Amino acid sequence: MEKINQLTPKEIRKLIRKGKWDKPTAGLAVGYAQANLVILPQKYAFDFLLFCQRNPKPCPLLEVLEPGVYRTEFLSSDIDIRTDIPRYNIYRKGKLEATLKEIKGLWEKDFVTFLLGCSFSFEEALLRVKIPIRHIEENKNVPMYITNIPCKPAGIFYGPMVVTMRPIPLDKVTRAVQITSRYASVHGMPIHICDPSIIGIKDLRKPDFGDSVTIKEGEVPVFWACGVTPQAVVMKAKPDLCITHKPGHMLISDLLNEELATH
Amino acid sequence: MEKINQLTPKEIRKLIRKGKWDKPTAGLAVGYAQANLVILPQKYAFDFLLFCQRNPKPCPLLEVLEPGVYRTEFLSSDIDIRTDIPRYNIYRKGKLEATLKEIKGLWEKDFVTFLLGCSFSFEEALLRVKIPIRHIEENKNVPMYITNIPCKPAGIFYGPMVVTMRPIPLDKVTRAVQITSRYASVHGMPIHICDPSIIGIKDLRKPDFGDSVTIKEGEVPVFWACGVTPQAVVMKAKPDLCITHKPGHMLISDLLNEELATH
Repeated sequence: MEKINQLTPKEIRKLIRKGKWDKPTAGLAVGYAQANLVILPQKYAFDFLLFCQRNPKPCPLLEVLEPGVYRTEFLSSDIDIRTDIPRYNIYRKGKLEATLKEIKGLWEKDFVTFLLGCSFSFEEALLRVKIPIRHIEENKNVPMYITNIPCKPAGIFYGPMVVTMRPIPLDKVTRAVQITSRYASVHGMPIHICDPSIIGIKDLRKPDFGDSVTIKEGEVPVFWACGVTPQAVVMKAKPDLCITHKPGHMLISDLLNEELATH
Repeated sequence: MEKINQLTPKEIRKLIRKGKWDKPTAGLAVGYAQANLVILPQKYAFDFLLFCQRNPKPCPLLEVLEPGVYRTEFLSSDIDIRTDIPRYNIYRKGKLEATLKEIKGLWEKDFVTFLLGCSFSFEEALLRVKIPIRHIEENKNVPMYITNIPCKPAGIFYGPMVVTMRPIPLDKVTRAVQITSRYASVHGMPIHICDPSIIGIKDLRKPDFGDSVTIKEGEVPVFWACGVTPQAVVMKAKPDLCITHKPGHMLISDLLNEELATH
């Protein structure tokens, strides 16, 4: 096997397409944007698109494809949505039914594909100015928490916002706000700083998803809207069918993170 | 009649609702965001929402209502979409059929309302830093041009981008870019600066809509995506029915322009 973290997005997708890579994509194609995947039958598509429009922080849309279309235009001209993601989760009526390496056999003409921004993009920007990312340092998954902040409902979709937490040194908090504000299409600026109880988080040591990380003296917890929110919301609405990526097993695009910056 | 330009948004909407104001809204409720209106039957709603998602500069969504809903939440809790706009244009199969003062009698349970940002908001921000707005100085309508820049199509909707032009003194062009970049939800930064022929405009003295304005020595034409684009595109697609505001006769919201700034 080639050294995968030296390959281009196109080369990595080729390996994935051939079934030769079905592991997480963190650390691959550094500098390029990765995307969350949600596929829904057309009858749910307006409601979900409206949900994303109303909740741009947890659900930042990078690209939405027309019914039946499995080729992207904006993220790359060389992506097949049915084969280019390492692992797919198949949910029926909100229940995980299977995890597959490709979904060609399941594809239907009325499937609408939604691709959403991923915080990997802004983490790279934070690291570039030497703001530490604790879960990367500790080789863990980012800690995620269910908050008491309700998303704005749309049609059948509703639920609380899920957030990620990164401990930030006090003297770098404003810089972290400033930098992540540039990346509205990958969750953007934090939604909360400091006291977790205000957003309904009882114990930072017990995340609802991912791993607990160390908060050092002189650091404050900073919270960003999380891409798990749309998946949690979709699962709650229990559509007949929903296909997502397996968490951490993202779509790797040809877009540079910098191309997503708004200013 | 009270001096209307001293009234609050709520007071002005009350006059409009009673049929006592059916004129343009430029200059009213200064500091508050005004919105473009597009109402479509539900069968066209996904395509149009997708069109706006793909073309955020000409079609910046402020709020989208669920099918049948005529009360806003984000723009104000005191708006009735059927009565609170001074003049409505009723289009059937792309043809203007009537211009009405209210649409209660036409309202259907499957109508989906789209409210889009308006450049009045960023003009206020430019004026605050003493960047002149020529069409306001000359008491004219902003000049608008059909470009050769194609919008990204979505479903039945397609067409060229329409732009507005404002002559800006050379030494203030970068400041104008910087300031309007803050207002992504009201068309944002310019899409082109200088040579109009590059975007397919043959003669600046002959705008496709609105009025021609003076370009003084030492000024360059600066072009922004225009809210006429979605209406032009909808008319081209010839849906059975589409209701819009009459150009210039906008919805006045309770949101301050500053609340729309992204950074």
